[in-house]
Amino acid sequence: MNDKQIYIGLFGFGTVGKGLYDVLQKIKPDNVHIVKVCVRNVAKHRHQAPELEFTTSADEIFNEPHINFIVELIDDAQAAYDIVKRALTAGLPVVSGNKKMLAAHLPEMIELQQQHDTALLYDASACGSIPVIRNLEEYYDNDLLISVKGILNGSSNFILSKIFNEGMNYSDALALAQKLGFAESDPTLDIGGWDSVFKLIIITVHAFGVYVESDKIFTFGIGNMNEHDIRFAQEKQRRIKLVGWAEKVDDNRLILSVMPHLLSKQKYIYSVEDEFNGVVIKGLFYYKQFMFGQGAGGFPTGSAVLSDITAQLYDYRYEYKKLHSAHKPEFSNDHQLRIYYRYDTPHNLNLLNFKNISESYYSEDYKYVVGEVSLQELHDKAPQLRSADVFLSLYPED
Amino acid sequence: MNDKQIYIGLFGFGTVGKGLYDVLQKIKPDNVHIVKVCVRNVAKHRHQAPELEFTTSADEIFNEPHINFIVELIDDAQAAYDIVKRALTAGLPVVSGNKKMLAAHLPEMIELQQQHDTALLYDASACGSIPVIRNLEEYYDNDLLISVKGILNGSSNFILSKIFNEGMNYSDALALAQKLGFAESDPTLDIGGWDSVFKLIIITVHAFGVYVESDKIFTFGIGNMNEHDIRFAQEKQRRIKLVGWAEKVDDNRLILSVMPHLLSKQKYIYSVEDEFNGVVIKGLFYYKQFMFGQGAGGFPTGSAVLSDITAQLYDYRYEYKKLHSAHKPEFSNDHQLRIYYRYDTPHNLNLLNFKNISESYYSEDYKYVVGEVSLQELHDKAPQLRSADVFLSLYPED
Repeated sequence: MNDKQIYIGLFGFGTVGKGLYDVLQKIKPDNVHIVKVCVRNVAKHRHQAPELEFTTSADEIFNEPHINFIVELIDDAQAAYDIVKRALTAGLPVVSGNKKMLAAHLPEMIELQQQHDTALLYDASACGSIPVIRNLEEYYDNDLLISVKGILNGSSNFILSKIFNEGMNYSDALALAQKLGFAESDPTLDIGGWDSVFKLIIITVHAFGVYVESDKIFTFGIGNMNEHDIRFAQEKQRRIKLVGWAEKVDDNRLILSVMPHLLSKQKYIYSVEDEFNGVVIKGLFYYKQFMFGQGAGGFPTGSAVLSDITAQLYDYRYEYKKLHSAHKPEFSNDHQLRIYYRYDTPHNLNLLNFKNISESYYSEDYKYVVGEVSLQELHDKAPQLRSADVFLSLYPED
Repeated sequence: MNDKQIYIGLFGFGTVGKGLYDVLQKIKPDNVHIVKVCVRNVAKHRHQAPELEFTTSADEIFNEPHINFIVELIDDAQAAYDIVKRALTAGLPVVSGNKKMLAAHLPEMIELQQQHDTALLYDASACGSIPVIRNLEEYYDNDLLISVKGILNGSSNFILSKIFNEGMNYSDALALAQKLGFAESDPTLDIGGWDSVFKLIIITVHAFGVYVESDKIFTFGIGNMNEHDIRFAQEKQRRIKLVGWAEKVDDNRLILSVMPHLLSKQKYIYSVEDEFNGVVIKGLFYYKQFMFGQGAGGFPTGSAVLSDITAQLYDYRYEYKKLHSAHKPEFSNDHQLRIYYRYDTPHNLNLLNFKNISESYYSEDYKYVVGEVSLQELHDKAPQLRSADVFLSLYPED
């Protein structure tokens, strides 16, 4: 142990920022201190932590010579970008929790870290309390990684759990998730799969050394799911889960997607319930690893942020080794997937070119096919698919 | 990435040593090389790796100036101790897979690392491919850890899985485990819980900063289990698992044990089957984390050993921070446990002082009680319990 002291300038005091504060209050480390907190509305937060100094001015944080560490835990991706960039440029180490910002700007952020010889850590951003990124960086760096598959969003998973385990309907489940604080008041990010795709992008950089922009990745959430789809899953003894998926389908091609999967009981992530996250890492040598834990909430995420902070005590940095690897795969949407597809009109059926249709059902109020489509086509038609009255889910054979 | 080169002197070429070699053959890293292998019987191994240089002389390894790294993967704990000590004393970094040796000599090994300013890594020793130690060291170092509970031995778990899921009897299951290479020809270490207790000791140093010698820890395996016990578990809709368990029962007391647990379906480790390992880490802030993966086998463990080796490329060391913590708990056996206890004679029933007996059954050929006993008493009576025709298992209320 060294005697380094971390003096934090904190941006944001929402669930996670407050969580970090609560965790620090509880364990009282002698080398980690919050010096000042920048928030939009001081009056809203002052009573939550009377002894902390709040400000609305970012300058006040950056001009405080005492502060040697920036922690950014705000919602606004553009503001987060400005803060993190300013901090790195000033040579200050940063912890960021904004996955949207990170997913959009990782290449630049990696460059800034190198240019200014400082660290940006964000393990807490990807799966809350599960240290996925650090394990991919450090521990799974020798195996030939095949795939990473995970339930990356606690809110949507909470809703699916209530539907599949407690027979709740979709809107009641969503309302409950919001009431319990698992879902944002605007749940589009969670339900639509966007939050998952941001995390998938971050994970993929560390798992495979490949950075892919979100608009290239097929992303389809659970917002279109209806009672028929739920019954279909139950009849097949499966559950629908929203899954972020990165897989090397051969030596050169890496596919990525966020979409519902119809999972059978044999799958590890079948049993990930409620607001939990779970990630299955598959490698050539160790078969499968499964990591599971709380993906949201103030305490778990605050504690994960603190782990990112104290990593600085021993100068930990992500090395991004795989980004520079000679044999990394290329991102591709060139892959056939077997899906369940519920549609309403012939026009919407014809949105996709199915091959090998193995199941087909038609009635007045419920129509579906099970067959193969290309991921490229799914990606290209995603906007139409999202806005039509259709639902689709990966439907693996086993 | 730096251009450091690792030139390995390898001791042992059994399942794990050969696994390491196979993994290296497959991924061909340009900075990790096996220079020479020391084995007891060269003729036995030469054909497995014709291009490797084998020797029976440890001196040949230690006198080879080219070698800058020692990997010790042998069965014999005393020989492993001599090798690792010699290497550390010579300032060479070491990876060791011998949990028995580590469990017995960790304090000395920690001192040697400091004295000679070099690293000893052993993540692969504790749970094969699951990076438990490194996560406890680095990531879970801020949370207030409450407990670590895990299935730490693949062989005994394989046997229990065959019994509980496939209705196999004990001796057939053991024979199959041996045939598949999951159990040693002398299975006492696995079945008796000794392998688990060695791993638990190592994990406890990194989880709680407390080192406890194996003879202080109550260790009771599955060797005495019979058909009655299996039926009891099934009637209660539980499974018997052999569990290594470390828990802070209050701020100052840490209890440790390896014993069978009657687990209900709600428990994460209930579902850890076959040769897999699974560890549940419980902290004050993040509730529970579950890590799961292959705990044995050449490829998974060889790959884990390689992760320990390449950690040296960035000078990674365990910091043993918690060992120096001011508020670490003290090991204690002062705790009441609720157990299921099958016995044969009144004498053997009276071996233990039960309190709060909540269930009791008596017939000619099957007698048991469910009640509370102290861990201290279990520990003190362990030799008698092991050699009598009795079986016991933790039987938690939920």
